[in-house]
Amino acid sequence: MFDLIIVGGGPAGITAGIYAARKKIKTLLISKDFVGQAGKTSLIENWPGVKSISGIKLLENLKKHLEKFKIDIKEGEEIVEIRKNKDFFEVITSQNNKYSSQAVIITSGTNPRHLNVPGEKEFIGRGISFCGTCDAPFFKDKTVAVVGGGNAGFETALDLTKYAKKVYILESFAEIRADEVLLEQVKKNKKIEIIFPVQIKEIKGEKFISSLVYQENESKKLKELNLEGVFIQIGQVPAGRLARNLVDFNEKNEIEINPQTNETKTPGLFAAGDVTSNPFKQIIIAAGEGAKALLSCHRWLKKNNKI
Amino acid sequence: MFDLIIVGGGPAGITAGIYAARKKIKTLLISKDFVGQAGKTSLIENWPGVKSISGIKLLENLKKHLEKFKIDIKEGEEIVEIRKNKDFFEVITSQNNKYSSQAVIITSGTNPRHLNVPGEKEFIGRGISFCGTCDAPFFKDKTVAVVGGGNAGFETALDLTKYAKKVYILESFAEIRADEVLLEQVKKNKKIEIIFPVQIKEIKGEKFISSLVYQENESKKLKELNLEGVFIQIGQVPAGRLARNLVDFNEKNEIEINPQTNETKTPGLFAAGDVTSNPFKQIIIAAGEGAKALLSCHRWLKKNNKI
Repeated sequence: MFDLIIVGGGPAGITAGIYAARKKIKTLLISKDFVGQAGKTSLIENWPGVKSISGIKLLENLKKHLEKFKIDIKEGEEIVEIRKNKDFFEVITSQNNKYSSQAVIITSGTNPRHLNVPGEKEFIGRGISFCGTCDAPFFKDKTVAVVGGGNAGFETALDLTKYAKKVYILESFAEIRADEVLLEQVKKNKKIEIIFPVQIKEIKGEKFISSLVYQENESKKLKELNLEGVFIQIGQVPAGRLARNLVDFNEKNEIEINPQTNETKTPGLFAAGDVTSNPFKQIIIAAGEGAKALLSCHRWLKKNNKI
Repeated sequence: MFDLIIVGGGPAGITAGIYAARKKIKTLLISKDFVGQAGKTSLIENWPGVKSISGIKLLENLKKHLEKFKIDIKEGEEIVEIRKNKDFFEVITSQNNKYSSQAVIITSGTNPRHLNVPGEKEFIGRGISFCGTCDAPFFKDKTVAVVGGGNAGFETALDLTKYAKKVYILESFAEIRADEVLLEQVKKNKKIEIIFPVQIKEIKGEKFISSLVYQENESKKLKELNLEGVFIQIGQVPAGRLARNLVDFNEKNEIEINPQTNETKTPGLFAAGDVTSNPFKQIIIAAGEGAKALLSCHRWLKKNNKI
């Protein structure tokens, strides 16, 4: 029985862990990895005090700081459900392990949104990627497409031009939503071609993907691009379903929290970071929220004589 | 006319400044210094990703990051009042300078609480200090007193033992409120003597202080300690009075904000960090709140066609 289980190893979860260790709360932190969305960012220039750092390196620094303390960490386990018994919480993982605690802080972040078209599921890891930073180097001299015309899509496309010979950006809206500064860089880059507005219909291949079928919005014509890679960058979905019986969700499927205390509707269950209704998704904000959730949780544990 | 004036150069203000620069908002940051309460902390071990750093060094890193951007900074000016005209804000400084902007973010933090006893005001900087980290080295081989038996007082006393020959801790309550771990360190240190519960009555001297008069709570006897330094560590008061006509204050004199958006009751006026009603005062939380206030302010400026 732990005093606290922290679910998630991104900036919010790690910061909550550091604060928990310093408060000497008996804590277990469970996370499938210590990467998350932040760790997949190629360059971070708005973590205060550090002019420029890769996402991987920042997460590495955070994790090293956490490991300085004697805190229990389970890496590689995915949480499928959080249950509330009369007096305590049970956290169930995909390996069917069960961990118990007095309180839980959910910092499970977000997962990439899927296209939900034929071929997508089958070819994940075989040509389809959700992370340019992770996978761009595998596409040296290949033709690839980025699906999504927001900032993430444009940044991924620019990253890919360091390796790929040709990069298509496919966008479903009639308007490009990326920032002006990125749009300028993309326009200057001769490897990139923007095709929009179009709808993705299918991804084809055998062992690996070989083409992508899209439909032009106006002409309704179907077209096929031969390519070896597709990077899907159409946003994130909050990963809060694991607590579906204990929390309320807003219209974006984010966990509703009291923004001052990070409490959910279930006493003893807190949440922080991108999984929550906090409207601003930023690494430094998630870290601050992680500290806030822990201090609020600590107050709750003491008030209820749990520690 | 600026789009935004940020008042304060601590972790909240600097982070707001970095985010403002990246959004290309025409911003002026005004601060009497870039130290604040965080910068006066001798050792910070809960800034995520950095195992251990001095407050001065952390603030230096933050300031350097800010200075990477082309943002207007006025250092050395103190703000005495923020006024709202029909359509814009006016920020008035102690030098009687006046700056105007569409929006304002207040991150003015806190100031040290004063004792309000005879002699205190006269001898500030002449034996009386509110910052052990800043001033301890001036008291080599001297006798000093720390007023305040909380964590800040105990940490200051321990800092002082590196220089002073004798350190008194004077506490007004019948109970010591410092953490157990600090109490143990203090008890082991032969240079430190704790005197409590007592009330400080007067600080005496001529050019510099020479003694402190206190009254024992129980016996009501007045006693006098000969000493050369007094460090006052009895808490902080929020520095939000400069906006007194535009915001509501809670019972702690903190500026009331909407915790999700950092808005005050005056449209276009935001606040972040220790000056606000956010219940948890931590550097990482202040930084996150600074980013949140800026993003919220950016949304407001756009929505109201101010930028």
